[in-house]
Amino acid sequence: MLSFQQYLDKVNGAIAALKYPERPALLYAPIAYTMDLGGKRIRPVLTLMACEALGGNANDTLDAAVGLEMFHNFTLLHDDVMDRADMRRGKPTVHCRWNDNVAILSGDTMLTLATQLVARSGRMELIELFNRTAIEIYEGQQHDMDFESRDDVTIDEYMEMIRLKTSVLLGCACKMGALVASAREDDAETLYQMGVDLGLAFQLQDDWLDVWGDPKTFGKEIGGDIANNKKTFLLINALNRAEGENANELKRWLSTGDERRDDKVRAVTAIYERLGLKELARKEIEQYSDRALQALAHVQIGTAAREAFTTLINRLTRRDR
Amino acid sequence: MLSFQQYLDKVNGAIAALKYPERPALLYAPIAYTMDLGGKRIRPVLTLMACEALGGNANDTLDAAVGLEMFHNFTLLHDDVMDRADMRRGKPTVHCRWNDNVAILSGDTMLTLATQLVARSGRMELIELFNRTAIEIYEGQQHDMDFESRDDVTIDEYMEMIRLKTSVLLGCACKMGALVASAREDDAETLYQMGVDLGLAFQLQDDWLDVWGDPKTFGKEIGGDIANNKKTFLLINALNRAEGENANELKRWLSTGDERRDDKVRAVTAIYERLGLKELARKEIEQYSDRALQALAHVQIGTAAREAFTTLINRLTRRDR
Repeated sequence: MLSFQQYLDKVNGAIAALKYPERPALLYAPIAYTMDLGGKRIRPVLTLMACEALGGNANDTLDAAVGLEMFHNFTLLHDDVMDRADMRRGKPTVHCRWNDNVAILSGDTMLTLATQLVARSGRMELIELFNRTAIEIYEGQQHDMDFESRDDVTIDEYMEMIRLKTSVLLGCACKMGALVASAREDDAETLYQMGVDLGLAFQLQDDWLDVWGDPKTFGKEIGGDIANNKKTFLLINALNRAEGENANELKRWLSTGDERRDDKVRAVTAIYERLGLKELARKEIEQYSDRALQALAHVQIGTAAREAFTTLINRLTRRDR
Repeated sequence: MLSFQQYLDKVNGAIAALKYPERPALLYAPIAYTMDLGGKRIRPVLTLMACEALGGNANDTLDAAVGLEMFHNFTLLHDDVMDRADMRRGKPTVHCRWNDNVAILSGDTMLTLATQLVARSGRMELIELFNRTAIEIYEGQQHDMDFESRDDVTIDEYMEMIRLKTSVLLGCACKMGALVASAREDDAETLYQMGVDLGLAFQLQDDWLDVWGDPKTFGKEIGGDIANNKKTFLLINALNRAEGENANELKRWLSTGDERRDDKVRAVTAIYERLGLKELARKEIEQYSDRALQALAHVQIGTAAREAFTTLINRLTRRDR
């Protein structure tokens, strides 16, 4: 079993080694640009770790792992078009640097390249898992967009949305590694569940950090979700729980334009804190990371592998960036 | 061996039997809408015909055939966003009826659903062929968009563009059927080539019909390519061949706005005719359909199958709609 950093190096090495045709330049340059932006590479690292934890060789699943990262980056690319997002990881998004058409078509190409990378495994079960997961992720993205125009979203609906949009890909990443290691079906399934719970904790942590994260280490501006009235775990809970003056104040801020962004972020954060949401969200994050750790306890793996996953789960759900 | 109509009925039956989840409605309703628009269904019919011509059972390749039709419709859906096309088969395009985001995300979903349908065959070689073909089609679409801003496109570049954008999918459709029939490698490859040549003849015929087709049977307005200065086989040849007054007149019409559409279509058609392009294009179409027929002659199939393909090739390349 290697360290997280060593698996990350393997993943980054494989991504750097990807060769794209030179032409048409407008098709492939945005793909190279996107894959070079970096990112935490959590999904492919999970695949390599799961594979080796269950007795496989990480190199046997490197293509599929990179395929998942390619797929993840494809979803970000198309999501950025849909959300009209200008920046991603500190650089202009593809549709801003080039245009919408380039973003749509190079995204489509990344989806097929991702499928090719997964198919290189020669394993039908990986391809099926990958396609099924992709469909769930599109459903999650559609739910997320649907939420924008609704003011009656429940916490259950929100949790189901982030399960689909974010978490199943982490579950898929873990299970793929297990399948390549020819793990027992129940171990593969338990690792899938561990990945999903980790993904839920991870996304809730993302919501939390957007409000209470340290601007120095978070990597993007604090308060973006509040400024955009994004229906997060925090806002949905606030809408459900606020009464009297809190409710009125929250309602007023939700209809405020961009010109008072900083005031809005400060005021809504204060409402969240008065409603006890900082602690509630923290508890929820811990509940899901505990569930991930419990799932891990049920998988038959060695001590080194167990420690590596435990470290990763703790790091990802108590992360400050 | 069944008739074209009988294979078409099989395909339409399978498409009508596709079940989509009810929710999220904005994800799946546009997919059902797109698949219900109809179309010639040439690609899936080619797959079924190729399979039975080579001794297989069409039912064994019905899922993959429908997958190709789903893929084809996905490319049309995303192309319509990129080309800002309002109408498709007499109905509003998805991005017009809903919006761009719906078109992007439901298109992505169609691509993965298409891959799932192909993967149901359980054959790795089909998945590989499908993914390779998809990448070529994106490259063709990018070349096509690149051509819009270039005035030095050669006929060779144009033929390579339509080979990628249109023809390889017909080749892929034929080869898939052959692979499912467990045909000999050289027969599968020859049928692929037949499909590609048929696709080239088919696209050139499309260019020809846009100018000289019968408005009653063509199904869309005549002259759309001329009105949009679309770099077709005809316009590229005209730009290469026109001299003196023809060249000046053509240049003037290319910079005319929409307000003189009908005059422009009439005048550019007359220039094409003065340059002998009506006959040149006809000859080119026949050359490629002859090549398709020659390829067919090299495949070891029965008389009924040979006749069915011959009828189809003649029908598609001398079609009036």
